[in-house]
Amino acid sequence: MAADDRPTLGIGMVGYAFMGRVHSQAWRSVDAFFDLPARPVMAALGGRSKEATATAARQMGWAAAETDWRDLIARDDVQVVDICTPGDSHAEIAIAALAAGKHVICEKPLANSVAEAEAMAEAARTAAERGVHAMVAFNYRRVPAVALARRWVAEGRLGRLHHVRAQYLQDWIADPAFPLVWRLQRDRAGSGALGDIGAHIIDTAQFITGDQITGVSALTETFVRQRPLAEGSAGLSAGGTSARSGTVDVDDAALFLARFAGGAVGSFEATRFATGRKNALRIEVNGSAGSLAFDFEAMNELWFHDHTLPAAEAGFRRILVTEAEHPYAGAWWPPGHGLGYEHTFTHEIKDFVEAVAAGAAPAPAFADGLRVQRVLAAVEASAADESRFTAVEGP
Amino acid sequence: MAADDRPTLGIGMVGYAFMGRVHSQAWRSVDAFFDLPARPVMAALGGRSKEATATAARQMGWAAAETDWRDLIARDDVQVVDICTPGDSHAEIAIAALAAGKHVICEKPLANSVAEAEAMAEAARTAAERGVHAMVAFNYRRVPAVALARRWVAEGRLGRLHHVRAQYLQDWIADPAFPLVWRLQRDRAGSGALGDIGAHIIDTAQFITGDQITGVSALTETFVRQRPLAEGSAGLSAGGTSARSGTVDVDDAALFLARFAGGAVGSFEATRFATGRKNALRIEVNGSAGSLAFDFEAMNELWFHDHTLPAAEAGFRRILVTEAEHPYAGAWWPPGHGLGYEHTFTHEIKDFVEAVAAGAAPAPAFADGLRVQRVLAAVEASAADESRFTAVEGP
Amino acid sequence: MAADDRPTLGIGMVGYAFMGRVHSQAWRSVDAFFDLPARPVMAALGGRSKEATATAARQMGWAAAETDWRDLIARDDVQVVDICTPGDSHAEIAIAALAAGKHVICEKPLANSVAEAEAMAEAARTAAERGVHAMVAFNYRRVPAVALARRWVAEGRLGRLHHVRAQYLQDWIADPAFPLVWRLQRDRAGSGALGDIGAHIIDTAQFITGDQITGVSALTETFVRQRPLAEGSAGLSAGGTSARSGTVDVDDAALFLARFAGGAVGSFEATRFATGRKNALRIEVNGSAGSLAFDFEAMNELWFHDHTLPAAEAGFRRILVTEAEHPYAGAWWPPGHGLGYEHTFTHEIKDFVEAVAAGAAPAPAFADGLRVQRVLAAVEASAADESRFTAVEGP
Amino acid sequence: MAADDRPTLGIGMVGYAFMGRVHSQAWRSVDAFFDLPARPVMAALGGRSKEATATAARQMGWAAAETDWRDLIARDDVQVVDICTPGDSHAEIAIAALAAGKHVICEKPLANSVAEAEAMAEAARTAAERGVHAMVAFNYRRVPAVALARRWVAEGRLGRLHHVRAQYLQDWIADPAFPLVWRLQRDRAGSGALGDIGAHIIDTAQFITGDQITGVSALTETFVRQRPLAEGSAGLSAGGTSARSGTVDVDDAALFLARFAGGAVGSFEATRFATGRKNALRIEVNGSAGSLAFDFEAMNELWFHDHTLPAAEAGFRRILVTEAEHPYAGAWWPPGHGLGYEHTFTHEIKDFVEAVAAGAAPAPAFADGLRVQRVLAAVEASAADESRFTAVEGP
Repeated sequence: MAADDRPTLGIGMVGYAFMGRVHSQAWRSVDAFFDLPARPVMAALGGRSKEATATAARQMGWAAAETDWRDLIARDDVQVVDICTPGDSHAEIAIAALAAGKHVICEKPLANSVAEAEAMAEAARTAAERGVHAMVAFNYRRVPAVALARRWVAEGRLGRLHHVRAQYLQDWIADPAFPLVWRLQRDRAGSGALGDIGAHIIDTAQFITGDQITGVSALTETFVRQRPLAEGSAGLSAGGTSARSGTVDVDDAALFLARFAGGAVGSFEATRFATGRKNALRIEVNGSAGSLAFDFEAMNELWFHDHTLPAAEAGFRRILVTEAEHPYAGAWWPPGHGLGYEHTFTHEIKDFVEAVAAGAAPAPAFADGLRVQRVLAAVEASAADESRFTAVEGP
Repeated sequence: MAADDRPTLGIGMVGYAFMGRVHSQAWRSVDAFFDLPARPVMAALGGRSKEATATAARQMGWAAAETDWRDLIARDDVQVVDICTPGDSHAEIAIAALAAGKHVICEKPLANSVAEAEAMAEAARTAAERGVHAMVAFNYRRVPAVALARRWVAEGRLGRLHHVRAQYLQDWIADPAFPLVWRLQRDRAGSGALGDIGAHIIDTAQFITGDQITGVSALTETFVRQRPLAEGSAGLSAGGTSARSGTVDVDDAALFLARFAGGAVGSFEATRFATGRKNALRIEVNGSAGSLAFDFEAMNELWFHDHTLPAAEAGFRRILVTEAEHPYAGAWWPPGHGLGYEHTFTHEIKDFVEAVAAGAAPAPAFADGLRVQRVLAAVEASAADESRFTAVEGP
Repeated sequence: MAADDRPTLGIGMVGYAFMGRVHSQAWRSVDAFFDLPARPVMAALGGRSKEATATAARQMGWAAAETDWRDLIARDDVQVVDICTPGDSHAEIAIAALAAGKHVICEKPLANSVAEAEAMAEAARTAAERGVHAMVAFNYRRVPAVALARRWVAEGRLGRLHHVRAQYLQDWIADPAFPLVWRLQRDRAGSGALGDIGAHIIDTAQFITGDQITGVSALTETFVRQRPLAEGSAGLSAGGTSARSGTVDVDDAALFLARFAGGAVGSFEATRFATGRKNALRIEVNGSAGSLAFDFEAMNELWFHDHTLPAAEAGFRRILVTEAEHPYAGAWWPPGHGLGYEHTFTHEIKDFVEAVAAGAAPAPAFADGLRVQRVLAAVEASAADESRFTAVEGP
Repeated sequence: MAADDRPTLGIGMVGYAFMGRVHSQAWRSVDAFFDLPARPVMAALGGRSKEATATAARQMGWAAAETDWRDLIARDDVQVVDICTPGDSHAEIAIAALAAGKHVICEKPLANSVAEAEAMAEAARTAAERGVHAMVAFNYRRVPAVALARRWVAEGRLGRLHHVRAQYLQDWIADPAFPLVWRLQRDRAGSGALGDIGAHIIDTAQFITGDQITGVSALTETFVRQRPLAEGSAGLSAGGTSARSGTVDVDDAALFLARFAGGAVGSFEATRFATGRKNALRIEVNGSAGSLAFDFEAMNELWFHDHTLPAAEAGFRRILVTEAEHPYAGAWWPPGHGLGYEHTFTHEIKDFVEAVAAGAAPAPAFADGLRVQRVLAAVEASAADESRFTAVEGP
């Protein structure tokens, strides 16, 4: 066999539910498709239940299992800590990992509060001075179509931006009988649709425009206040339900209007009650020279209207973002052979490994995650203050 | 020839620009496709310029021309006054016509202010007591797909409504060189995108849901403040431009969040800066039992998601609203042979004639137009008050 | 009123079913939207039943009614004969009208046999020498999107043409209980889906490409051989059904492969059994420099792929064919305010009137109709000869 | 770590170009998402060049490399031979592997001729008697939407089938400067678009309908006869080109009409010249009770028209085939989180492993591949015989 003289990069991952499964697939695949400067090694998986964690580790391809994340961080064969737990544990694990000199990639939203996110961003800032890096995992930036949209806006192809129209529409809790899973509990999830999926459209909108939201006017709603208690369920799955019910204390839907620093206005909506919409992360940007539109339910497509063409020839064109010249796409298959959800994570990890191996800061940084958190906080503040326009705090 | 012993209904129309042309086509066509209880006669056209009005009358098929709308109203052969002028003249003409015992159909928005609209609604109320009727011309209610949407919501097929998502996207003034036509002047048009196209999505949303907007949080923006003065141009056409410029004192875009009396939340956006979107009046309604989606750029289609089906079989279905069983469609062509913009006016006039001939009140009434006007006013008030949530006034 | 010193052009129309209704609407509307050199006058309608014809004339706006088409042709106030009857009467009426010095516009297919079509084309040729003109009414050429497609192919924007892919899909007889209307009888209709809708895609394909089909390999099928007899039904409507049944002696579906003179290959399909497809006249053309795609169910859209763009930027773009620069569209409404089925007839009649008034030959000529008839004949011949490739006869 | 007491299944794969890369990803991933009865072990990769094969093995995760496929077959740690080479070597390798008692999965088309395919099917038949199994890799059967289509047709939801409309449209050789790669050479590839992509739509059509094509009428075309010689290029990539040119002796496009045993008619087209279409494997099936439509460029969608619904409610619905109840989909992500091209291979291998481990015959069998080969042969025979309808030979 050919020698592989690249350095290894040992990975320790915490959490093995939905996010853990897809991160595992990304770690398992990335080295076969991208020329990485370091070889990722799936060293250890962390979870609370000894048996379940061991089973998950075996199935997902992790070499070892740990039942205390502190032990995972402490392992010599772990140089990267990948945090796939719910938001209430992000700050503690990430700060500890950075303090231990381990690079960190952390699922979004960065934290459940601005205070936690500030602490994490500060920890990341000081760690970076020591060459230890952190990244928040806004995977949708790594959809090839979204990355292409960012490229074209940065090249000025849309001209001056006027409108951002972003929605993240799901319907998985529209049924009042769906149980009270952790994502519907404020102490675990921080917020409801807002932090879970609203965070994604905020980040995606800021990423594509290269601009910042400066203030918002918001309205949130909880359509179903009482739900049956879940029995051992987690995440997006219902599991069984109990005869007892509990109170939903997060938003079912969050809507807000926004202003961007560069002058554009935005309309945002995140909901879990849009029946028939399964995972419709949608964004349209209208500029003086053109427009872009994207819908994750057709993730291999980017729609582009070139407003500099004669009106008689112009229209939104459906670009299959599967060409070798497109972001990430060249590493995979021939044109027209589309990618899926999991590939956004493979791309994210590829960028992370490249940055870390080069001693550079991966993007989005914890500071970007903090910025999103501040927008989330402004949304909640506005919604609590008669929708009054509320400035996003921070530098 | 076969005898036509129906009574005649003499029409006098004021204004012959864009709206006048399409109303004329509707009056010219309606009797050939619908079994009307009265025969409309295109009696007289009113305009200011003698020559231009006479030419328009000949081209559009009006038997006579008048240069003073008061004379038009006074004609014995006119029983209906159709008002197609800009919003600043609606109140005066409509009130005078009703006082003269003439039925009135008036273009939207009903007026340029709530006060005017209130006066009109009051005039309509008292006229109705005398058997004289008034209607505001929200033509999009008469798109077969929109009427079908209303029918299905009324039948409960969407269950409890949670979301309304409405946009009216155009791009005809995205070019800063486009001149300062009357639609960009507050004294003529009342407002910008808000009253012109925002009024349509407000009415359409309230019509389809059968519900009322109770309050809004709004944000408006004027992206291009100075524009070249127009030379003799009107309406949507640019005509020539002058070297001098003037100030745009209306909104280019208006965005607002809304609450409905029945508990749904809504997101609305009206803009003339959405490059690539030509006349995209879009509305989606999500309910507990299903969803509906419509885009006027594909006006013969209604998309319906039946959430009561098993998840494995459900999805948005594209219904071509051209079946004999669909609203209005049976009067025209076989399935799949679509209708166009103008037919919405033909349908509107058909409904108007039927109501008037039966001595009944046509819908939407001036009171409905007033209700829309109050929402517009609430939007402007909220936008002027830091987007604070503002109740829609009125009964 | 302004004087109208244009000459008049008296129209006599034969037939008042589906085609007659839509032709009437076109005659009624065309003068209000286009600057015609002559003023069309709806002089007389011809039909067999005195009462029904008179009623139809009144409803559709014809000034007189005739029960013998010979009398209609003979009228002094008729300069144009518009033939909207089934195909079995086209030849007799058209040849007589031309002989009487009347211009003729005749519905498609031109005739029920090549022999009839040849006689008609010959009559048109000699009439033209006397300044009397004839046109076959392939209305789909006048869809703005189809006319735009033709323009762009003629300009070379698609490069060398390789593929034509045309389908005309309907489903109105998929139900075996649908009765044996005249369109399912060979003696009346000549053929089934082939002549009725297959003729349209043949003409549309030859029109857009500017090329001729030189030979075909075909297969036809009749899925339902026995149907209940119709009671007084006609055309596309079922009316009542009888307990007795009769034999369908035309094709339910016709499929054929084709070669074009210029080297392209084509795939054609016409069927009335494509459940869910209502009036899907579809055509896609692939050339070395680009592709075009059209579907009548979304008739205001033309999809264009510019293959000269870099691959990373290319894709099918959806052009709303409603701009002032587009064929026919400028006469109607602002961008995005679409047209419907009937407007294709208004455009056709506009072109016809302009040509006739100018003493020029309108297109498509009877010779073009004959050419289509010869392709239909080749299709039937190939289908009857084991699908063997069969040359289209003629010059 | 948890014990894994399942038997192992050693895999030896031959070929590491496009197909080898995607098969490797499938073998690497399948065990993490499906509960397999045996644990696949990526034992050895076979290729001709020692260095290149070793490098590929390392990158793709194969434990060893072999430069002679006979040595690969002979390895004790190999129980399955996965053949990813061009079609000219399939027969030799597959027959040898089966003779050696190794299960085989072989890329499509099964072979370059009917004779080879017959020999392979015969070898598979006798091997099966010894408990050794073979499968041909028509991966598109394992698109969840295609598998769902098959399920619904089998359940009778489409009623009697009337139409199949299948296309496989690509554009990668539309440029005449694209070089003469092996896929354009008859001795390597057997045929052009026909065997490469036409084979897929034949298999997919027969799979979804559960029916067999009994005869065809065909037409093939080579638009560009001379191409520059390739320099070291392979497969779909151009690599450099030489100044010399060579002759293309395969079809650029193949079109055919077909009859199915059950009475349906079909229209098929495979081309590499459909500019703007990248990998558009499309199939629509129309039956008396409903229709299904699929396009691989939007592979997570299946469009279903339920013709048993009232006409006013019916239309093609877009089903996102990502629900837990859908074929394969439940193993992956929540609804709306789509899959990509590679997953069709993961599903195929999952089914293969399950069958082999159970001692059962995987599908599609070599006999199915032979059946497709016979259709390909009939297409070529018909095209060479004036498109005459040609029966598909065989039992």
